[in-house]
Amino acid sequence: MWRPASTRCPGGRGEAAISDSGEGSTMPKGARVIEGHEVARDMLREVHHDILELSEVHRLTTTLAIVVVGDDFNTLRLIQNKCQRAEDAGVRVQLHTLPPETSDDEVITVIEGLNHDERVHGILVQHYLPRYRDARRLIEAVDPVKDVDGFHTRNAGLLANDAPAFVPCEALAGMHLIKQFVDARPIGWHACVVGDTHRTGRPAARLLLNERCTVTIANEDTRDLAEVSRQADILIAATNRAGMIRPRHVKPGAAVIDLGRSRVTVNDELRIVGDVRLDAVREVAGWVTPVPGGVGPVAVAMLMRNVVTACRRQNRVDEKARHAAG
Amino acid sequence: MWRPASTRCPGGRGEAAISDSGEGSTMPKGARVIEGHEVARDMLREVHHDILELSEVHRLTTTLAIVVVGDDFNTLRLIQNKCQRAEDAGVRVQLHTLPPETSDDEVITVIEGLNHDERVHGILVQHYLPRYRDARRLIEAVDPVKDVDGFHTRNAGLLANDAPAFVPCEALAGMHLIKQFVDARPIGWHACVVGDTHRTGRPAARLLLNERCTVTIANEDTRDLAEVSRQADILIAATNRAGMIRPRHVKPGAAVIDLGRSRVTVNDELRIVGDVRLDAVREVAGWVTPVPGGVGPVAVAMLMRNVVTACRRQNRVDEKARHAAG
Repeated sequence: MWRPASTRCPGGRGEAAISDSGEGSTMPKGARVIEGHEVARDMLREVHHDILELSEVHRLTTTLAIVVVGDDFNTLRLIQNKCQRAEDAGVRVQLHTLPPETSDDEVITVIEGLNHDERVHGILVQHYLPRYRDARRLIEAVDPVKDVDGFHTRNAGLLANDAPAFVPCEALAGMHLIKQFVDARPIGWHACVVGDTHRTGRPAARLLLNERCTVTIANEDTRDLAEVSRQADILIAATNRAGMIRPRHVKPGAAVIDLGRSRVTVNDELRIVGDVRLDAVREVAGWVTPVPGGVGPVAVAMLMRNVVTACRRQNRVDEKARHAAG
Repeated sequence: MWRPASTRCPGGRGEAAISDSGEGSTMPKGARVIEGHEVARDMLREVHHDILELSEVHRLTTTLAIVVVGDDFNTLRLIQNKCQRAEDAGVRVQLHTLPPETSDDEVITVIEGLNHDERVHGILVQHYLPRYRDARRLIEAVDPVKDVDGFHTRNAGLLANDAPAFVPCEALAGMHLIKQFVDARPIGWHACVVGDTHRTGRPAARLLLNERCTVTIANEDTRDLAEVSRQADILIAATNRAGMIRPRHVKPGAAVIDLGRSRVTVNDELRIVGDVRLDAVREVAGWVTPVPGGVGPVAVAMLMRNVVTACRRQNRVDEKARHAAG
């Protein structure tokens, strides 16, 4: 039903905190800062439980293969972090490190081997490939049912059509935090996604659309970003431009979810920062996720959950369970 | 580059006509009504030329197969119209009319036969299937390289990733009219798509995103539609709710593209109408497309163009031409 103009901001958990009025608002100052670590811990506990069940009941060792080409230090550190989290959750990791001189065809041969290996349930191809590589070709080589990153065209299409898909983990994590902390059913909220990349902004917009939000997608050519983003009850920052989201971009009381991630040097020290100026924006927002420690850890947990889902689907675990029960 | 807030409404053809100011505007009243028939005629002439070349140079008969299940009168009339347009353009049409009692498996067997028939370049499965049918399953059975309707998950994913894809013809036609009449490069315009269906609204939004517009997608749960849509320089109506877009939904001077199509009975007479109240909205808008006679004929021409593209790709015509030239 297309609703009449008068039905603004219906009930629900979000109503008390998301206020329409800017000045004269009765809202307390200071946003709730959503910490991701605890959420990730709970999620990884569930994942661990599922993995034990897959192992004990179905004799399956949930396995993630990671294909890394080259020896970029930052990439390897990121991969190391994922391996550690995977092991903590009980996911077995196969690391395929290929020297930088490996040709794309050789990489694809490795990926195809993993596609056919039924002991491997999820495949990651690392992102920070040297510029000369055809990243899209490598991504498309991954079997969509093992594409736990959700980057394959088939998974993008399934998500676009609101069908069961593997969804990129940062977008999934942002949506999870909104549903856990802001509104379990964000139907009708106005969301603004700032940044329209294929890996974070666009998938996030698709998830919000599938939740029946009104969604605005802003990009580098948006003419007055603050005017656009300030209307949003939910603001998703996905630009990877350090600190570009300031208080003037944020509607008072809004939920601000930071999917950005940039490396900046402060006093000769390398730091990871997000798109949002946390200290300033928390004075205006209702909720805000920090970087690091917000969406990041939840995204890693989401990746592990995707691997478990992949393992279950490939082995038709749920169908077998239903069959046994029936 | 993320632009500063001050660079609103840059130059270009659109600027003179798309005005920010509501009252006190110096704009002339009365929108330009964009007639689609002439555009379609020009397009079909080009298609006809391409088809002759495919026939004479490459010995190919550009062929569209249409699979129709059942005998719904309105569907058959629509199909008849498509057949006529196709023949006019020189596309050979294979009509496969199956009785209403045909099972989905039998329909899929027909589709698979057409997938493997290299004399068939495009396949349409008619949309108004009886409710009990699994329309998605039939659509997914079409080989994506022959899916000239652009409904297959693979084509949705390709469009989502801004890769060459078959795009649903109504969305394609709307975008074509914007580029021909409003702005050939609508970068940075704020577009609002009202209606988020998989077949029209969402593909239209993806096309606008790929053109680097700022895009808002509104749906049935949008709280104050007029407030949202009135901000848009380009308003795409895709709700199939007769006459729901009124002047209060439209920014003065905006381009209003009507992708809607509803059957209504007026004085016992069946009429096709769009989402937009043309007579009222033309007083406010800068451009508006009528229904019928706006997007519709262009969409049919776009379908024929998709069939030609399919024929060229399947037979690698452009590669061969490049090869011959090299």
